Amino acid sequence: MTHDTAQSTKPRVVLLGLGAMGAALGRAWLAAGYPVTVWNRTAARAEPLRALGADVAGTAAEAVAAGPLVVTCLLDDASVEEALAGADLHGRDLVDLTTGTPDQADARAAWAQNRGARFLSGGVMAVPPMVGVPEAGGYVFYGGSRAVFDRHRSALAAPLGVHFAGARPGAAALYDIALLSAMNGMLAGITHAFALVRGEEMPLKEFAGLLTSWLSAMASAADTMAEQIDSGDYTRDVVSNLAMQVSGNRTLAAAARERGVDFRLLAPYSELLAERLAQGFADEDGTGALELLVERS
Amino acid sequence: MTHDTAQSTKPRVVLLGLGAMGAALGRAWLAAGYPVTVWNRTAARAEPLRALGADVAGTAAEAVAAGPLVVTCLLDDASVEEALAGADLHGRDLVDLTTGTPDQADARAAWAQNRGARFLSGGVMAVPPMVGVPEAGGYVFYGGSRAVFDRHRSALAAPLGVHFAGARPGAAALYDIALLSAMNGMLAGITHAFALVRGEEMPLKEFAGLLTSWLSAMASAADTMAEQIDSGDYTRDVVSNLAMQVSGNRTLAAAARERGVDFRLLAPYSELLAERLAQGFADEDGTGALELLVERS
Repeated sequence: MTHDTAQSTKPRVVLLGLGAMGAALGRAWLAAGYPVTVWNRTAARAEPLRALGADVAGTAAEAVAAGPLVVTCLLDDASVEEALAGADLHGRDLVDLTTGTPDQADARAAWAQNRGARFLSGGVMAVPPMVGVPEAGGYVFYGGSRAVFDRHRSALAAPLGVHFAGARPGAAALYDIALLSAMNGMLAGITHAFALVRGEEMPLKEFAGLLTSWLSAMASAADTMAEQIDSGDYTRDVVSNLAMQVSGNRTLAAAARERGVDFRLLAPYSELLAERLAQGFADEDGTGALELLVERS
Repeated sequence: MTHDTAQSTKPRVVLLGLGAMGAALGRAWLAAGYPVTVWNRTAARAEPLRALGADVAGTAAEAVAAGPLVVTCLLDDASVEEALAGADLHGRDLVDLTTGTPDQADARAAWAQNRGARFLSGGVMAVPPMVGVPEAGGYVFYGGSRAVFDRHRSALAAPLGVHFAGARPGAAALYDIALLSAMNGMLAGITHAFALVRGEEMPLKEFAGLLTSWLSAMASAADTMAEQIDSGDYTRDVVSNLAMQVSGNRTLAAAARERGVDFRLLAPYSELLAERLAQGFADEDGTGALELLVERS
């Protein structure tokens, strides 16, 4: 009885888009006791959610009419406009978890506001298996209306953690993309490392353990880098200066050549550091090279 | 008294090369109670070690004559040959911690054996401040003579952890270089990420914390990658397949363009994955792209 009463106080979540991520979110909201209305372009994908207790709307407009909190989790930004074309968004709190660029999120926010909605953009730092599993540590960056974020915080926090990234809607996608970009750099490095050691004596599983420990320990370099960037002083707290790093990178390139492994994944970073060194910054940390990545206006 | 007796049973360590790393090693051995004989090309750098109790040799040959365990930690591989040119290496256990490529280590091993020495090559996974600080987690990969490794294991383990990498001398440098290469990929990714978010609302220190947590969590992808490589089946345990990854990478590139950030550090990895996808491996994980890095013989 208490359980039912508690459930009835939870606001309805309208969910548009039942791909792998959308379906996982829907299941998590249902499991947490939220009433859920779902819509998906391909109707068959809604049936598993219906079986779990969701209301299934025949059109996106009908779904949007079912409640004030509308969550979109669609293929891309263009799909959001297309899906919501015939819906009345007045008075709706639109939370868009669709993957896109920061500029797309900013433009979508203006579009939503012109149609009478409040808008919050989300950038999901999780894969579907992490949804509804708090210990997996997945979360969503939110950018845009702080009021929408505060009003729906409990509902938003049910499937994944929440992190407010800023008042600009595009901030959510920007932080999401920044983390994914950093991960891609790491995966490129790991791929190169495996190419180097494959066929050696040590089992790859054992090497993978060493690699994970090493990268986890070294990831905290980000703290020092943040301080260097904030201070504008790239010579503070330097353990291995740019001259030493550039020299070391030559050894990495030579070892790749010896092993017949293409150095292409790591070459641009080596070249960037060498370029910064050639500009006369031998005493800096490698961090200063980011100045070369940013276009001067 | 007991302390003195224990000390006297510790073997002498002969240390050639007192750069930042060599000096840190020397201090750690002295602190651990080992008798130490040092030599450095620039004699003045030996004085701080002498003050801590080290014996200082006037020449490398004189140092080598002082004991059977000879550790070199010099500028580069050529410096090892130069420093030891006039020394009698017969019966010596030469442990070379000088940074070089795997092939250089293999060649140096043959050179040392021709001169009557047993040879062990080391690849140092630590920066000088980590030496003698076990909780910092630094260690050395060793490759080459297992007998030398076993005989001197206690002495070698005093300043840093030890990890035997294989019977090939060059294995030590190879694993060292593989981990450093992976780290460089990660640092490239972090640099790009900071370039994207600099100037946004969230303090960089806060973002750095999110970045460190995210990368630490994602580094364990190396375990799955090792299994995929070992099995030759890049479609097992795929969470986000190659088609999705390549699509996502287009968003990363578009976001970089929007922000005026050069995509050069991440472009080669995106291109490698796209190349593998074009070969028809849409259902694989990104790991399969390493096949494109390795030259066919």
